[in-house]
Amino acid sequence: MNQKAFQDYYPDHLSHCYGCGRLNQYGLQVKSYWDGDETVCRFQPQPYHIAIPGYVYGGLIASLIDCHCTGTAAAASYRAEGRAMDTEPPFRFVTASLHVDYVRPTPLGVLLEVRASVKELKGRKVVMTAILSVEGAVCARAEVVAVRMPDHLIPKA
Amino acid sequence: MNQKAFQDYYPDHLSHCYGCGRLNQYGLQVKSYWDGDETVCRFQPQPYHIAIPGYVYGGLIASLIDCHCTGTAAAASYRAEGRAMDTEPPFRFVTASLHVDYVRPTPLGVLLEVRASVKELKGRKVVMTAILSVEGAVCARAEVVAVRMPDHLIPKA
Repeated sequence: MNQKAFQDYYPDHLSHCYGCGRLNQYGLQVKSYWDGDETVCRFQPQPYHIAIPGYVYGGLIASLIDCHCTGTAAAASYRAEGRAMDTEPPFRFVTASLHVDYVRPTPLGVLLEVRASVKELKGRKVVMTAILSVEGAVCARAEVVAVRMPDHLIPKA
Repeated sequence: MNQKAFQDYYPDHLSHCYGCGRLNQYGLQVKSYWDGDETVCRFQPQPYHIAIPGYVYGGLIASLIDCHCTGTAAAASYRAEGRAMDTEPPFRFVTASLHVDYVRPTPLGVLLEVRASVKELKGRKVVMTAILSVEGAVCARAEVVAVRMPDHLIPKA
């Protein structure tokens, strides 16, 4: 894709996250984009992201949903204010709660797709639903609550 | 500790999990033990398991809780039958649902402790609560539902 991912707008000092930081060379480097009113993230697991032979590790699924949703919370907040993601002040979210229902085992070796929708955006809180699917088959459903990062946690640039 | 971890009893063909497989050289190699009626897992994150500077990545927390609880489900099932973990038939669980509430940011650089308790053990299902703490301070609370692995998913030894 030519468009920049949500995570590409995060400032350097907030780009070290294991899940989605572009500066974390050991991390997953999750990338999220708008697709209409939904957001989408596609991810190709490594062979070692295994649970049992043939299937993806559930902790990876939780991790992808987590970072895709905090990115979605930020993107939706900019959109709600009619602002581009490179305008000030920056929005950055942390996860308050993460609920994942594993509907069926997720096959390993194929591309995973996570789609999220904003259910509620109010004040500093964003509630989202997310679905992880493989070739159209739903493997996990999730609900994530993200909150604006408290100012005292934000490192100085 | 001298005692064997729950995960050390998993047969080789079920020991590749990214979270807890002793044969996954890229994985977290979570180890879980009984401590009275609770189970405990201690884990030292790597510097790259970062969320924002100074704090642990939430996806890692979800992953530790996930594998510690599937291990707990297996150990509790053996205990309920009065059997040692190296007796046949083996118990192995997968996660049906995972709910994590992130109570406060988890500091990076210190040892994490996850403790789980069985809330319900009935048929093929085990419901557990878990707490992740650092030096006695609770950082995350979770509820996990694990179910016995369906036979068709179990690879041949």
